[in-house]
Amino acid sequence: MKLQFNLKATDTETKGRLGTIIYNGKSYNTPMFMPVGTNATVKTLSVEEVKEVGSGIILANTYHLWLRPGEDIISKAGGLHKFMNYDGPILTDSGGFQVFSLAKKKDICEEGVYFKNHLNGDKLFLTPEKSIAIQNKLDSDIAMSFDECPPATADYEYLKQSIKRTIRWAKRGKEVHQNPNQMLFGIVQGGPHYELRKYSALETVKLDFDGYAIGGVANDHESKEDMYKAFEYSTLFLPTDKLRYAMGIGEPIDIIEGVIRGIDLFDCVSPTRLARHGHAHTWTGKINIKNSKYKEDFTALDQNCKCYTCQNYTRAYIRHLIMAEETLGARLLSIHNIYFLHELMKEIQKHLENHTLIAFKNEFKKAYYGVEE
Amino acid sequence: MKLQFNLKATDTETKGRLGTIIYNGKSYNTPMFMPVGTNATVKTLSVEEVKEVGSGIILANTYHLWLRPGEDIISKAGGLHKFMNYDGPILTDSGGFQVFSLAKKKDICEEGVYFKNHLNGDKLFLTPEKSIAIQNKLDSDIAMSFDECPPATADYEYLKQSIKRTIRWAKRGKEVHQNPNQMLFGIVQGGPHYELRKYSALETVKLDFDGYAIGGVANDHESKEDMYKAFEYSTLFLPTDKLRYAMGIGEPIDIIEGVIRGIDLFDCVSPTRLARHGHAHTWTGKINIKNSKYKEDFTALDQNCKCYTCQNYTRAYIRHLIMAEETLGARLLSIHNIYFLHELMKEIQKHLENHTLIAFKNEFKKAYYGVEE
Repeated sequence: MKLQFNLKATDTETKGRLGTIIYNGKSYNTPMFMPVGTNATVKTLSVEEVKEVGSGIILANTYHLWLRPGEDIISKAGGLHKFMNYDGPILTDSGGFQVFSLAKKKDICEEGVYFKNHLNGDKLFLTPEKSIAIQNKLDSDIAMSFDECPPATADYEYLKQSIKRTIRWAKRGKEVHQNPNQMLFGIVQGGPHYELRKYSALETVKLDFDGYAIGGVANDHESKEDMYKAFEYSTLFLPTDKLRYAMGIGEPIDIIEGVIRGIDLFDCVSPTRLARHGHAHTWTGKINIKNSKYKEDFTALDQNCKCYTCQNYTRAYIRHLIMAEETLGARLLSIHNIYFLHELMKEIQKHLENHTLIAFKNEFKKAYYGVEE
Repeated sequence: MKLQFNLKATDTETKGRLGTIIYNGKSYNTPMFMPVGTNATVKTLSVEEVKEVGSGIILANTYHLWLRPGEDIISKAGGLHKFMNYDGPILTDSGGFQVFSLAKKKDICEEGVYFKNHLNGDKLFLTPEKSIAIQNKLDSDIAMSFDECPPATADYEYLKQSIKRTIRWAKRGKEVHQNPNQMLFGIVQGGPHYELRKYSALETVKLDFDGYAIGGVANDHESKEDMYKAFEYSTLFLPTDKLRYAMGIGEPIDIIEGVIRGIDLFDCVSPTRLARHGHAHTWTGKINIKNSKYKEDFTALDQNCKCYTCQNYTRAYIRHLIMAEETLGARLLSIHNIYFLHELMKEIQKHLENHTLIAFKNEFKKAYYGVEE
């Protein structure tokens, strides 16, 4: 079955959108945060836990699964859903982001990208056609076009040539895409530049994808201002009836600013990565559970949180687990952090409905970051 | 509440015993395998999973918890049960086993043992009184006497002096034991020697403990024959109405041989340690899931197993998780391995009831180890 998206309402105060995703008999609300399961597992969690914390779409990384265990094994297993036992929607990236972090500029040619396998150093070659073929076999519900991910700080002329190639690659990928149950998204690039984002968006939309992503927004030390420009300059030129996805965004304020600019989907490894380092989201900011002040703190991570972790465990116990490098520690923090982001999305949805998202943003910034607007 | 043990029946074919442990309104059958939660967590599992796989008593290590987070923090949390959120029975060891693996012979004196903290190299001193005081604070349901754990291969004269000191230490510990809800067990030592085991058992029983352990059976490269002698020569002199516990035993055949010789409780880190290394128990032997023959094996770890892992995941997926060093892999294998040992105990109980344990042992050895009796 193919995933369906229905736009339900558009905010009158911001460009925010409320929508519904229908998949496998279940309905999920957008804007949505999507946890990342790089190796066909959301790190430390079972699929039951992934669902219990409120997840809908989860991500898997094409690059990692291509190298290990290989798309043929996953295909023989009956696709990613059966392989990892997850019956909710799955999105796969194109592999481009990982490949470009491993490749040098000179390794990029019209045909594709040469780079070294990070596991064994083998020379590999990835092309738009190959990326789509792998994703077809993985049988995810949303596949991404293979794009170049230049840093936002790349020079204007380079970016201009790069987005043109990315559009040619998108076209090549679409031509070989063969999975009728799988959506295929195009990716808008162009750094923080209005003209480039406009060109990239309009040309990509001409190719008529099932949805559109905003790329190049989280792979560099770009300023927040530039990130939000990239959101705004992209969504301006995207059709209203298709999903819009900001890739790699997981910082709460960036999600809120993205929603304000008309974005529906966000993903990031941050909730599980933060967890492994002992960090937890709370409604009054991030805390580092390793801090010695939590040694004898027998309260929950967040007093108002209803997640499994907060209902059953204390900061003192979680701190002990993290200090002792017991994996249950990262698991309890991952459960909490992903739950927190899903709760944040529910708050955002509520405030979109009430046209009070800007006020919520200001309150949230004050409470979470200690910043007055 | 104090844990209760009731002996229900004694096998007519072997020295095997069937019993019941009553704790916190729940009843558990013996012979029982007890999983180990060194740092107040059974590695990779939540307490819900610990219960779902069928566990009753679990272990925690006094030495580790003394050093981190410290017994005072656990006491302030309300004891181990509250700290780790486990409402089933908990047994703590005395710290002796860990201390002796870190100490040199010359560091052992009448008063106690000097040794180095394995986390930071600090010099530490542990005595029978200190071990009991820590366990009192941890508030486990069964505390162990502080004993010397000499290797089974230690010379006879050394063992003789050592067991006498261990008896003096047991007496000192019992005198300071102050937790009315906590059982205190004595430990029988003496290597594979009949006279030493007899002396150790009789003198320890004179001190009137709530139960008795057989120590020195898994800390060395002793032969199986010597291990089984140690079981037999100890239980011969133990009262029938008290629990008997073989420390550190987790290999299936050793558990069966222990039951045959009248032992009720067994513990070992093996199911979780094997899991971290990619090994799984099956009814036809241990398998190493890293083996490339499981790459495309889309069957369960064990065809007849009803555990969560076997009901939901394939060998190919678990292999992938272990190869990719994803913690869900060790978790799925830990769930399966602990479940397997609990199922083994159920089989043993059934065969004790039917007086067919010897036949079961022979069948099991053939199926699991490929050995004909």
